[in-house]
Amino acid sequence: MHNYDLAPELTATYIAQVWQRLAPHVRPTLLLPAPRLSELVGCDVLLASETFQYTGSFKFRAAYQLLTSVPQRQIIAASSGNFGQAVAYAARLLGKEATIVMPSTAARVKIEAVQAYGGRVELTDVRRVSRQERVAQLAREQPEAFVAPAYDDYRVVAGNSTLGQEILGTDPPDVLLVPVGGGGLISGQIIARDFLGCRTRIVGAEPLSANDAARSLHSGRLLANATEPETVADGARTLSLGQLNWEIIRRGAEEIIEVPDEVTLEALRLLFLLANLKAEPTGALALGALLLQADRFRGQRVCCIVSGGNVDPALYVQALAGGSAPI
Amino acid sequence: MHNYDLAPELTATYIAQVWQRLAPHVRPTLLLPAPRLSELVGCDVLLASETFQYTGSFKFRAAYQLLTSVPQRQIIAASSGNFGQAVAYAARLLGKEATIVMPSTAARVKIEAVQAYGGRVELTDVRRVSRQERVAQLAREQPEAFVAPAYDDYRVVAGNSTLGQEILGTDPPDVLLVPVGGGGLISGQIIARDFLGCRTRIVGAEPLSANDAARSLHSGRLLANATEPETVADGARTLSLGQLNWEIIRRGAEEIIEVPDEVTLEALRLLFLLANLKAEPTGALALGALLLQADRFRGQRVCCIVSGGNVDPALYVQALAGGSAPI
Repeated sequence: MHNYDLAPELTATYIAQVWQRLAPHVRPTLLLPAPRLSELVGCDVLLASETFQYTGSFKFRAAYQLLTSVPQRQIIAASSGNFGQAVAYAARLLGKEATIVMPSTAARVKIEAVQAYGGRVELTDVRRVSRQERVAQLAREQPEAFVAPAYDDYRVVAGNSTLGQEILGTDPPDVLLVPVGGGGLISGQIIARDFLGCRTRIVGAEPLSANDAARSLHSGRLLANATEPETVADGARTLSLGQLNWEIIRRGAEEIIEVPDEVTLEALRLLFLLANLKAEPTGALALGALLLQADRFRGQRVCCIVSGGNVDPALYVQALAGGSAPI
Repeated sequence: MHNYDLAPELTATYIAQVWQRLAPHVRPTLLLPAPRLSELVGCDVLLASETFQYTGSFKFRAAYQLLTSVPQRQIIAASSGNFGQAVAYAARLLGKEATIVMPSTAARVKIEAVQAYGGRVELTDVRRVSRQERVAQLAREQPEAFVAPAYDDYRVVAGNSTLGQEILGTDPPDVLLVPVGGGGLISGQIIARDFLGCRTRIVGAEPLSANDAARSLHSGRLLANATEPETVADGARTLSLGQLNWEIIRRGAEEIIEVPDEVTLEALRLLFLLANLKAEPTGALALGALLLQADRFRGQRVCCIVSGGNVDPALYVQALAGGSAPI
């Protein structure tokens, strides 16, 4: 284990404790060998699907870990996506109350999902006040509340590392491909790999139009996108990596592969056609990276993390219909 | 265990042997608690999904069991769907050669799937010669070949019973809902239930337009559909139950619920929206039956078998787009 300046709490003892305590509360990931995808790309493909995790994405791991770690009963989070659903459901399970700040333009299905998991939705007209400002307002109104960070936090990283435990704990693959937004998921996998002392190379997959992490790794310093990037992978529309995530990634990730949206959507279709898996676009990024660089990984054992499956049906239908059948 | 006139081979010893020997060769089913579906129907819903079984449906269990049970190296099967893919892949794994007879009108993706799993496809113009006749011709040409039955066979029933072992082996639900076509899957679940000595009620789910099994159970004798029924659930377009399957079902099934196609498609959409699960229409029949009779099962622990996930993308897109969002 390395020591991280920004998170001295990330010790081997702490990781071991999180792995032991969190495991009974999360669903094991679905580890799915994919013979038809393997044949297509010429390597041995294993999928690690978090689409059947509670609330349909890996975010539940971090949300539950975070909410068990704090004494507060009132939780505030800003998210229009998977983190909001995860915080809402973790709060309900733990007898806490979650307020999720969402833009008033958020899709109805997403608002209703947060509500279905027991969350209170606070809609904000983001043309008038940003979500971060609205969270700050709410935090002032409820000084006893805990504001839940989505990725830049050691408890989040440790929660996400439980997925790495499952993937790398027995028979680790040569390569682990991981979607990258704020960097919470990939930094968790790096921590897990280093704790286990295995040699799996960890490679990120980021939308080409939101390539701040790739540019950061190339330049050696943390860079940000100028504005919220436009990409079909809505889970990766972050301005930059978190500070802690960056500290972990710069030391532990081999590379970040930049995936154009059309390749991400091709990967989404292939997951549907050749693996019976419903993935959201962000969840298809890792397979997209493998499609782009199949030659580089030929003959190796490659695990692609499918980070989540929550996708608007209309968008999914469009994505499925968008390409000619690739088989 | 009952004794069955048509299959004296189905003894407790045989079942125990199949369970022990087949388990390492099949993927465990995905047992998926479904909190949002549970809330919708008012009972505790567990999904047992065979969509990630080898070749994407439960049929692989029976195909592998069947092909390990016979000495022949040449295998012939008639199937335009999941059984053909399962036989092709089981044959490849066992070093055998499979010829799958398919109608020349079969969808290209289905033909290519059989070929991708290593099967030889024999296309037949079914206006000139039926698939059964073509199978008989091929069997005369290759007298050394084994003609693989899809459901009316004790080895098929025993292979399918391994799914029941997984579902009922620990903490059995109150009710198990099972799609019904030829009756191979549900008869396997009945055998498993009786072998385990548990009290789970087993209820079939059949397309309303292909309700031969429901009519048979009501009348007490095996009835057939006059012609191949039209239903979106293509895995249940059988003329009648198999003889052995009927003998098992009439003694062991509580009822067969008749599901209109529009309810099956609603179930398919709900599996997508509320459980992130890509199911084929036949795979959505059991949840369709639960939607139809939610009051009857209220408060109970109900397991729905999702028998497979192989569906033409165009049909799936149409099904998803077909209904207004139910949430």
